[in-house]
Amino acid sequence: MRVVVINTGTEILLGDVLNTHLTFIAQQVLPLGLRVERQIAVPDGSAIREALQESFRSAEIIFVTGGLGPTTDDLTREITAEMLGLELVADPDLETTITERLHTRGIRLTDRILRQAQVPRGAQVLPNEYGTAPGLYLAPRETATGASPHLFLLPGPPRELQPMFGQSVLPLLRRIGRESQPFAYRAYRIVGMGESYVEEAVGAQLLALAGLELGYCARMGEVDLRVIATPEILEQADAIVRGRLAASIFSTSSESLETVVVRQLAERKATLAVAESCTGGFLAHRLTNVAGASEVFLAGCVTYANEAKVSTLGVSPTTIAAQGAVSEEVARAMAEGARVKFNATYALATTGIAGPGGGSKAKPVGTAYIALAGGGETVVRHLFFPADRETFKQLASQNALNLLRGRLA
Amino acid sequence: MRVVVINTGTEILLGDVLNTHLTFIAQQVLPLGLRVERQIAVPDGSAIREALQESFRSAEIIFVTGGLGPTTDDLTREITAEMLGLELVADPDLETTITERLHTRGIRLTDRILRQAQVPRGAQVLPNEYGTAPGLYLAPRETATGASPHLFLLPGPPRELQPMFGQSVLPLLRRIGRESQPFAYRAYRIVGMGESYVEEAVGAQLLALAGLELGYCARMGEVDLRVIATPEILEQADAIVRGRLAASIFSTSSESLETVVVRQLAERKATLAVAESCTGGFLAHRLTNVAGASEVFLAGCVTYANEAKVSTLGVSPTTIAAQGAVSEEVARAMAEGARVKFNATYALATTGIAGPGGGSKAKPVGTAYIALAGGGETVVRHLFFPADRETFKQLASQNALNLLRGRLA
Repeated sequence: MRVVVINTGTEILLGDVLNTHLTFIAQQVLPLGLRVERQIAVPDGSAIREALQESFRSAEIIFVTGGLGPTTDDLTREITAEMLGLELVADPDLETTITERLHTRGIRLTDRILRQAQVPRGAQVLPNEYGTAPGLYLAPRETATGASPHLFLLPGPPRELQPMFGQSVLPLLRRIGRESQPFAYRAYRIVGMGESYVEEAVGAQLLALAGLELGYCARMGEVDLRVIATPEILEQADAIVRGRLAASIFSTSSESLETVVVRQLAERKATLAVAESCTGGFLAHRLTNVAGASEVFLAGCVTYANEAKVSTLGVSPTTIAAQGAVSEEVARAMAEGARVKFNATYALATTGIAGPGGGSKAKPVGTAYIALAGGGETVVRHLFFPADRETFKQLASQNALNLLRGRLA
Repeated sequence: MRVVVINTGTEILLGDVLNTHLTFIAQQVLPLGLRVERQIAVPDGSAIREALQESFRSAEIIFVTGGLGPTTDDLTREITAEMLGLELVADPDLETTITERLHTRGIRLTDRILRQAQVPRGAQVLPNEYGTAPGLYLAPRETATGASPHLFLLPGPPRELQPMFGQSVLPLLRRIGRESQPFAYRAYRIVGMGESYVEEAVGAQLLALAGLELGYCARMGEVDLRVIATPEILEQADAIVRGRLAASIFSTSSESLETVVVRQLAERKATLAVAESCTGGFLAHRLTNVAGASEVFLAGCVTYANEAKVSTLGVSPTTIAAQGAVSEEVARAMAEGARVKFNATYALATTGIAGPGGGSKAKPVGTAYIALAGGGETVVRHLFFPADRETFKQLASQNALNLLRGRLA
């Protein structure tokens, strides 16, 4: 079924507010076999009319967010009723709910506020536990231009829309969704190879499968491969993808690489310390974003200054003098120093040149050494990420985490 | 001028990725007197055609994001060229740039990757310093359906699009924008007070000024106040804002709070060390994102485990036992310990309960202590941020940086 999301709100188009509705709604409806095929954002006011008219022709389900409030630029309710040739009638229950809600908050009731109790005749009210404006569901009905789509009018504030979606919208969608043919969806999160290599490895074989839909999403140091097909075809696709890319797939859920690594460590009752120079704390930050990281993550050192590498990690000043702070030897000494100092099972270390300054001919900006100590040996990788500082830190930390993931796999 | 943003990307419509392009582009073009009047998101592939056709009729400027990459579902370049009746020609300079870029990274060149060097004849190339796919600008030209709009084809990854926008798109827009009426614009970045307090402090007075337009953008631990008016009115507004909020305004440019703090330290030839527990490296990460941070940032410790607080920072085990790791005393000892250990002018420390676990009745999840040592005294702030881990870390680090900013002001 063709699903369209229409967001109304001048604040969205001015860039004052990040529009999170599409992400939320898409994630909610996907498990029901429903996919959003288009999303449109328009300002408050009558612009909603044009957006609805376009979508009425082709959409089978339309979610409209915003424009249900009490102010003059909230016109979603009125315009929808007009388009469907329905009159607005006051809903006595809603009037009571709204009146009581305002009373308990000591807010004075005004005619404007009571407008929110007006509903198109025959619309189903979707209760709003977190605001005064109710949601509305309008089932398909004959119009001049054919049958209208399933229409869901939802409040703009996410804190109101999201609970309403779970309580009232999903049950209705499950009923509607029965009509749509089922399809299966899988996303593979791949680390350590670029988008074009992933396509080269599996693209042609996958596209040879009947009716399979393929998508790639390149993130920093990661590629998401998305496959949509009938359940049978999906299993064939899964065999191909795993056959070619198994070692590079770290997740088929929304789990981040750091979440996977923290879980691997916890399963092995192993602990981790990190010693960071070029990643500047970002590696520790990613690990400590994982709930429960304190079970496995002992400590980190951001040893930016050479003195700190010596005083905190026991790196030999002569090594730094002889090889330079950005070198295989120093990366190794940092990892081994951190592992011993914090008595951790494993330790990761990063040293490199994030830039923009500090580069040389021998060691240009983007040079990085990643070390992993533990399990009886220390491995060091020499890498090169010429990029801005944040990208450099992302790619260096991604490689460090993946090095450990491989060791723990 | 009517501005439309078209985002292509199946991952956006599947809810895998939050679409931040509209917010970014809207904020960028607003100072030029340009407003986004509509935004449309469509899947990868040919859906871009329909979206472009609709917008061609009414838009004067169209920004398309995504679909410029090397994979088969990247069709923006091809479809646009076809719609404008332009053939795609290989751009030799681009081929060189891409080939060299891949060479320096030791990535093998494939035909797919070289597709990105194809440009519609007459298009202006917008260099991409952070990826292989260049942006493209197509000036208006006569088509079957009348003059085409100004077309900007931009890469999907924000880290590629955003710098390109500043370097190549804004200069072109300024030329185009001359046609639209001029007005003045100023944004104030405010830390340490909530959106409603900012509005309470200046909202009414500002709105009393003739023709002034006001916008608020609440970020985590920060509020941006946006004022648009004629130059004369803007000066009056500026006096009001600075009169009421001076101490809380850390920037009227795009400078981040960490950038301001690093500059303050550099100006005073002062150095900084950080000792983090609950912020888990995020504070060091933010500081080391600033180019030149190595001039002032000496080292950081992420002492998650109590043993690390003792062994690295010299916090007394009896203090931890008596007061708990999350306490004013431990925050103070961490800051003072880090300052002495790394011989820094100042040291910041954070300890708290990020959650979801670890809370108690006396110290619930969200409790945080922020300490600043240096300049002859140590101050500790007791704060409370009941939120998810990442929000907690953002707010705690924001308060730590602002504490130092105040000291250095």
